[in-house]
Amino acid sequence: MENIHDFRLPAINLIGVGALKDLPLELIPYKLSKALIVTDKNIISLGHVEVVEKILKDLSISYDIFDGILHPDCTISFVEDALTYFKKGLNILKRDYHFIISIGGGTNHDCAKGIAIVATNGGDIEDYEGYKKLKKPSLPVIAINTTSGSGSEVSDSTIVRDNSRRVKMVITDPKMMPIISVNDLRFMTTMPPKITANSGIDVLTHSIEGFVAIEASPITDTLAINALKLVFEYLRRAYKNGNDMEAREKMMFAGVMGGMILNNAGLGYVHSMSHQIGALYEEMHGACNAALLPHVLEFNSISIPEERILKISETMGVKATNKQDAINKIKNGIQNLAEDIGLPTHLSSIGIDKDDLELLSKNAEKDICSSTNPRRGTFVDIMNIFKAAM
Amino acid sequence: MENIHDFRLPAINLIGVGALKDLPLELIPYKLSKALIVTDKNIISLGHVEVVEKILKDLSISYDIFDGILHPDCTISFVEDALTYFKKGLNILKRDYHFIISIGGGTNHDCAKGIAIVATNGGDIEDYEGYKKLKKPSLPVIAINTTSGSGSEVSDSTIVRDNSRRVKMVITDPKMMPIISVNDLRFMTTMPPKITANSGIDVLTHSIEGFVAIEASPITDTLAINALKLVFEYLRRAYKNGNDMEAREKMMFAGVMGGMILNNAGLGYVHSMSHQIGALYEEMHGACNAALLPHVLEFNSISIPEERILKISETMGVKATNKQDAINKIKNGIQNLAEDIGLPTHLSSIGIDKDDLELLSKNAEKDICSSTNPRRGTFVDIMNIFKAAM
Ligand SMILES: [Fe+2]
Ligand SMILES: [Fe+2]
Repeated sequence: MENIHDFRLPAINLIGVGALKDLPLELIPYKLSKALIVTDKNIISLGHVEVVEKILKDLSISYDIFDGILHPDCTISFVEDALTYFKKGLNILKRDYHFIISIGGGTNHDCAKGIAIVATNGGDIEDYEGYKKLKKPSLPVIAINTTSGSGSEVSDSTIVRDNSRRVKMVITDPKMMPIISVNDLRFMTTMPPKITANSGIDVLTHSIEGFVAIEASPITDTLAINALKLVFEYLRRAYKNGNDMEAREKMMFAGVMGGMILNNAGLGYVHSMSHQIGALYEEMHGACNAALLPHVLEFNSISIPEERILKISETMGVKATNKQDAINKIKNGIQNLAEDIGLPTHLSSIGIDKDDLELLSKNAEKDICSSTNPRRGTFVDIMNIFKAAM
Repeated sequence: MENIHDFRLPAINLIGVGALKDLPLELIPYKLSKALIVTDKNIISLGHVEVVEKILKDLSISYDIFDGILHPDCTISFVEDALTYFKKGLNILKRDYHFIISIGGGTNHDCAKGIAIVATNGGDIEDYEGYKKLKKPSLPVIAINTTSGSGSEVSDSTIVRDNSRRVKMVITDPKMMPIISVNDLRFMTTMPPKITANSGIDVLTHSIEGFVAIEASPITDTLAINALKLVFEYLRRAYKNGNDMEAREKMMFAGVMGGMILNNAGLGYVHSMSHQIGALYEEMHGACNAALLPHVLEFNSISIPEERILKISETMGVKATNKQDAINKIKNGIQNLAEDIGLPTHLSSIGIDKDDLELLSKNAEKDICSSTNPRRGTFVDIMNIFKAAM
C-alpha cells in the first residue's frame, strides 16, 4: 500500500541571532543581479529594509522596492499592483528582475510568492488557485521573516484574498518554494504584543492541526510536539515582555517548525474556516484560530487515536485520565492561553455575524486545508462548529 | 551575541512506500536531458537501477551508468575512475551530463557528490577537503537511497578515503547538497541483516552525537530525541526480520532524521575516530561507532548538561537517579543493543592493532567532526578513548 510523506523545505534556512549576516555568502553562487523587494511601509519605517538594501548594494545587486502591501492579508489587488510595477520599470533592465526578496511576515511572503508565480507563468493569479497548477517554476523568492508564526517563509503555499468572490484562495505548488528563508532574531523584537499573540497562536494551531492531519509523518509529528511544547513554555513570556530574548528565540524556532509542519503534514478545518473569516472580516488569522481550534478538536476527536490526544495533553503539561477528559483539558488550556495573551475566545467577540455563517461554511468546505482534516465533515458539520465557536 | 543555527536540507525529499513514483513529476521542471547514474554492481543485480532507468527512458532522458564503486567506503580512485568515464563518453553528447543520479547507500552518494564537485569545479577531489572550498555549485545530484542510515542523501558532506595518506577526507559545502533525495521502502527490504545493523547503529550515533554537539538547535534536538526513540523501538525488529515493514519504515524515517541532524547540528569524536578506522581497516562504519560511542560519551559527559544526559536515558526507556548513573545506563543500553544485532562492542574484536592508535588519534583530532564535539580534547585524550574502547 502506498504511503508517501514527502518533506519539502527551502534548501537553505538561516535561523538565529545574526542569521542575516550569512545571506550574502548564500546569494553569491546564484549570480543574481536584479532584485525586486516586496514589503510594506511599516517594515521600511522599522529600518528592516535598509539593512537588506545594504547587503544588495555591497553585492552590486540592483533593486527596486514595492511597498504597496497595505494591510495584513495578501489581496489580489496588491499582487496586481506589484505586477504593474514589475512591468513598467523605468528602464528595460529593471523589468527583468532575477529574484524577489520578501521582507515582512506571512502577508508579505504570500504577496511575493503571488508576484513570483505570475512573473514567470503569466496570466492572472486566480488562474493558479488550487494544488500544483503552475506550469513553470516561479521567480526565485528569498523570504526574510519579521514575525514568528505564519510559516510562509518555509512553505510552498500562498493565501490570497479575492475580494470580488469574498474568499481566500489557497495556491500550493512546490514550484514556488522560497529558495532561502531567513529568521533573524533582530527582526522579531519589533513585533508588537498583538502580533506576538496572533502569530504565536498560529504556531500552536499549526502544531495541533498538523499533528492530527492525515498527511502527518514521524518527522512532522516530532516537530509538532516540540513546537507545541515551546508555545506553552514561551508564548506568554514573549507576549508580556517583547525583549525577553530567550522567549523570542524559542518562539522563532517554534514558528519555523510550524512552517515545516503545515507544509508537510497539512492542516485542517481550523485553517479552512479561519481563512474564510479573514476573507470577509479582515480579522487577524491567529485570533480566529484561537476561537475555532477547541471546537474543531472536539469535532475531530472521534477520528483521532486516543494516544495522539493524550500526547497533546501531556505535552501541554496536563494530566488526563481518558480521551474525553484530555479533550476537555486541551480545550481549556488553549482558551486559557488565548485569554492570557489578550485574544478573544469566541467568534462573537470578533464580531462575526450569524448571517454570514452559511457563506463562511460553504467556502470553508472547499478550502484546500479541508482535504487533510482527520474527519470528513459536511457543510452542516462545519456550520455547527462555527455556531459552537460563536 | 551571535547564535546562528542554519538548517539545510534538499528542497525535495520523497519519503515513504512508493515514493519513487513521484520522481518523474519532480524531474520535469528541471528540463534535464542527460544523466550519469552512479552505483555499484550489487545494486544493479538487485534490480534497483532498472526501475530508475525506466523512469529516465519514459522522460526521454539519456543516461550512462558508472558501476565502479567496488566496496563500502568511497575511495579517491572510484571518483577518479568515474571522472575518466565522465570525460571519455562515446560521443560529444554524453560528455555533457546535466545531473548525476546516485543509487545505493552512503558510499554511492558520497562518490556521486565527489564526482559532481570535480565535474563543475575542475582540479582533483583532494583540492576540496575541508569546509566550503567549492568555487561553483556542483553538478545537481539526485540521491536515491537503498539503506537507512548514512544520511548522506540529505547532507552536504562527502567522506572520501585517501589511501595514499591513509585518512578519510571530509568535504562539506552547501554547494553540493543533493537537489532531491528519495527514500522508498521498496529498496530498504533488500538490506541484509549486517547492513541493517550497521546503518541502524549509525542512526543511533547521529542522534546522540548530534544531540550533544555544539551546533545543536531546538529543531535538531527534537529530531534527535525522536530518531533515538525510533532506533530503540524498531532496530532489533528490523534486524531480526527484514520483512517487518513497520520496523523498516520507522528506521527509514529515523535515518532521514539522522541525516538532518548530522547536517545541521554536527557530530563529534565518535565520527572523527570512526572515520579514521575506516581509512585503515575497511571496517563497517556502524560497527566502529558502536564500539566508540559509550567511551566518547563518558569522556564528553563533563561538558554535557545533566538534563541532556537524563533526556537521552529517559528516551532509551531507562530510569536514572543522577548524571553518572544515567551515563552508565546509556552505555549499557548501547552495548546491549549492539550485541543484540550482532555488532562487536570492542575495537579489539574488530581487529584494531594497538600500534595504529597513535596515527588514528592524530588523524581523528584533525577530522572536521571534532569541531562540533562538546568537549575539546587533546591528542592524548583521543588516544585514551581509543584505548578504553579496545
Ligand atoms: Fe496559520
Ligand atoms: Fe555516521
